[in-house]
Amino acid sequence: MTQRLIVIGGDAAGMAAASQARRRRDRGDLEIVAFERGHFTSYSACGIPYWISGLVPERDQLIARDPETFREKFDIDVRLRHEVTAIDLDRREVVARDLDGGGEVRERFDTLMYATGAVPKKPDWADTDAGGVFGMQTLDDGAALRDWLDSEPRPRRAVVVGGGYIGVEMAEALIQRGLAVTLVEQAEQPMATVDPDMAELVTDAMRGIGITIRTGLGVTGLEETDGRVSAVVTAEGPIPTDVVVLGLGVRPNTALAEAAGLPLGTTGGIRVDRRMRVQGVPDVWAAGDCVETVHRVTGMAVHVPLGTHANKQGRVAGINIGGGYATFAGVIGTAVTKVCELEVGRTGLREKDAAAAGFEFVSVIAESTSRAGYYPGARPMTVKLIAEKPSGRLLGAQIVGWSEAAKRIDTLAVALWNGMTVDDMTGLDLGYAPPYAPVWDPVLIAARKAVDALAAR
Amino acid sequence: MTQRLIVIGGDAAGMAAASQARRRRDRGDLEIVAFERGHFTSYSACGIPYWISGLVPERDQLIARDPETFREKFDIDVRLRHEVTAIDLDRREVVARDLDGGGEVRERFDTLMYATGAVPKKPDWADTDAGGVFGMQTLDDGAALRDWLDSEPRPRRAVVVGGGYIGVEMAEALIQRGLAVTLVEQAEQPMATVDPDMAELVTDAMRGIGITIRTGLGVTGLEETDGRVSAVVTAEGPIPTDVVVLGLGVRPNTALAEAAGLPLGTTGGIRVDRRMRVQGVPDVWAAGDCVETVHRVTGMAVHVPLGTHANKQGRVAGINIGGGYATFAGVIGTAVTKVCELEVGRTGLREKDAAAAGFEFVSVIAESTSRAGYYPGARPMTVKLIAEKPSGRLLGAQIVGWSEAAKRIDTLAVALWNGMTVDDMTGLDLGYAPPYAPVWDPVLIAARKAVDALAAR
Repeated sequence: MTQRLIVIGGDAAGMAAASQARRRRDRGDLEIVAFERGHFTSYSACGIPYWISGLVPERDQLIARDPETFREKFDIDVRLRHEVTAIDLDRREVVARDLDGGGEVRERFDTLMYATGAVPKKPDWADTDAGGVFGMQTLDDGAALRDWLDSEPRPRRAVVVGGGYIGVEMAEALIQRGLAVTLVEQAEQPMATVDPDMAELVTDAMRGIGITIRTGLGVTGLEETDGRVSAVVTAEGPIPTDVVVLGLGVRPNTALAEAAGLPLGTTGGIRVDRRMRVQGVPDVWAAGDCVETVHRVTGMAVHVPLGTHANKQGRVAGINIGGGYATFAGVIGTAVTKVCELEVGRTGLREKDAAAAGFEFVSVIAESTSRAGYYPGARPMTVKLIAEKPSGRLLGAQIVGWSEAAKRIDTLAVALWNGMTVDDMTGLDLGYAPPYAPVWDPVLIAARKAVDALAAR
Repeated sequence: MTQRLIVIGGDAAGMAAASQARRRRDRGDLEIVAFERGHFTSYSACGIPYWISGLVPERDQLIARDPETFREKFDIDVRLRHEVTAIDLDRREVVARDLDGGGEVRERFDTLMYATGAVPKKPDWADTDAGGVFGMQTLDDGAALRDWLDSEPRPRRAVVVGGGYIGVEMAEALIQRGLAVTLVEQAEQPMATVDPDMAELVTDAMRGIGITIRTGLGVTGLEETDGRVSAVVTAEGPIPTDVVVLGLGVRPNTALAEAAGLPLGTTGGIRVDRRMRVQGVPDVWAAGDCVETVHRVTGMAVHVPLGTHANKQGRVAGINIGGGYATFAGVIGTAVTKVCELEVGRTGLREKDAAAAGFEFVSVIAESTSRAGYYPGARPMTVKLIAEKPSGRLLGAQIVGWSEAAKRIDTLAVALWNGMTVDDMTGLDLGYAPPYAPVWDPVLIAARKAVDALAAR
């Protein structure tokens, strides 16, 4: 008898799961229905800042696979603008509302895939009917901001609240569109995804392209004029603006899961096992920004909302739903970003993470170049390593550089993934040629320096 | 009592050893004398093609540390243009000849560091007194070629014999200097450092910038006119030329070692242990292009003459000579090069190496892009993986791409170094952001494809 898979959420995790399940089970065996409350499927949320800036001209370039492709090529019944409002685990049903006025439907499932993603953290002060205040998580959010930027009176000033990846990337995008941009950050520095000494390099680059950075400052309210935002309120007075973008991070979108009684972990994400099964709930799976996962270095639960994990986890869930076997091995916190031409990469633990997890460690910073010093285009590159004491095991790494820098974090990520010590790393056989590295690769220079630091203690 | 270290060979391995030994033992404890038969110390041989092409304008840019620095900063008695002609192990002496006419000296040693590097393979037909025929291994070789290219009558045509890294890089350099270049390769394809399917991409790029490639063709002799080379002779007739560059590879420079009775391995390189001690010969050390080392995948002895190994091995030897403890962990055959704007990386075994070593394997090729497809500047990237059957252990990898490609081989090199399977690799937490990769990193796409290929068998 034909079984039925219901997918809640039509972005990376949900559609990766659906298409992997379809690869293993045909329509006669498994019917697949996917509900997506937005207008789009499987798009690159990470690409939104580049569409806002104009670097990517067309919205549809961000869409990896449209609903027609899923319908025709994968035989998946994708229903856009349908918001699932309830999950009935006992009756094995979901209730979905057609957001374009078509009423409510009930759909039976044998297997449920929960992939609702995350929602931007929105403080109370941002809860307003005034126009011009935007979270930035979905392509619909991006489209709303684009419309606002193109509307009259034309916005000229922007305030970005929060200096994580999205905040920093949006600040740059808005500068590139010609707005005057102020980034307001509650902590002492934006880009807290890397240690302060490395973040300082990024802050300098942001100031260099004209972003005003206000640190140690919280936003407490909004001012409005004629139904439009006109300023953010801070302890140091109002900052006039025509648009506010929230970059305060996201939280797992679990309202529906909670109501249905799915288990949440300490991070607020849904608890899943290594095969992406919701813990203790038969035939219910979850993946992507709505789940928590395991950090391989600390062994602790973490919530790391990134498209790369959503895709991998969705694939794992789909393989298992399809009758195969796959597991998700956890994360080590690798991330890369480009800020004002500066390339930033990180993996593993920052100093404060390592301290919080109870590790003793040394940290070193090595200055080097992207290419042999004499080769045209060589640019500075800074590599930071954090190594456990006295074992020498790599705990974390960060790279900041001006070109060909960020993706080198992968070399360190694979070393860390495999539990290498910095001493072992000094022997690594990495590629050398003058257009790509000095004869001592920046990674090797940093490893040597870490070995020296460990010996000195 | 002060001990005495004699270093034979003043390039990467020798001087890395000398300076590491000095770091641990001061002058009162260890006197260091280094003999170098050429005019330079510690230079980047890998940079020579870029100096020939003019991309690197000044010769001295290639010199990492000059003799004065070693003398003044490291207290190392560097003697240039001194060729060691004999090693007397019984009397613990070396004999050196001053090539600028200063006669012969004998110097006592307690510890000997042998770092004579490699010499270009030179077939009998290349043994000529005619001008215009060059091996390309030392900075002196490069200087001689530069002089020849600037001499009258000005050379207009070049033949490069052999299509390995040096041959290919020199062919490009000579095209960039405006010469008409023919590359003659005995095998069916140049760039045999990667598998034929990947090498084809490189060959196309070489033809694209105007290099004439003649394959399946051996050079059997030279024609000379007025003491200058005028053609290379082949089975398909003479190829007229004004300059011949040998790119036939190099062999360990061991004449002196053999005469002294140092043990040579099957590859022709000096046999050393993991601390870089010459096997069975007390207080004699060797490192760099003159030694053989262990390939970590096959466990077999290999000769891999690369500056990166020379530096690492020299460092290891120097730490040990200085009283510390370090080992060289072997190689996995990682190499990168840039050919006609094409970036090429490789690590581990090629298909033919894997077959020769007795492995059963699958190999897959995955096409992807350097950045998210919608992000400006995304260029094609081809990743090839070779995985053991049925274990899935990664045996080798190759990457060819148009930008930001080559150094990604490091990610695969570290995976291979740690014995990862392609299945494990599909879970790797690599950096993702649109300027750096599609949401499925090219490395992960290739790993998934390899998993599928293993399952299909």
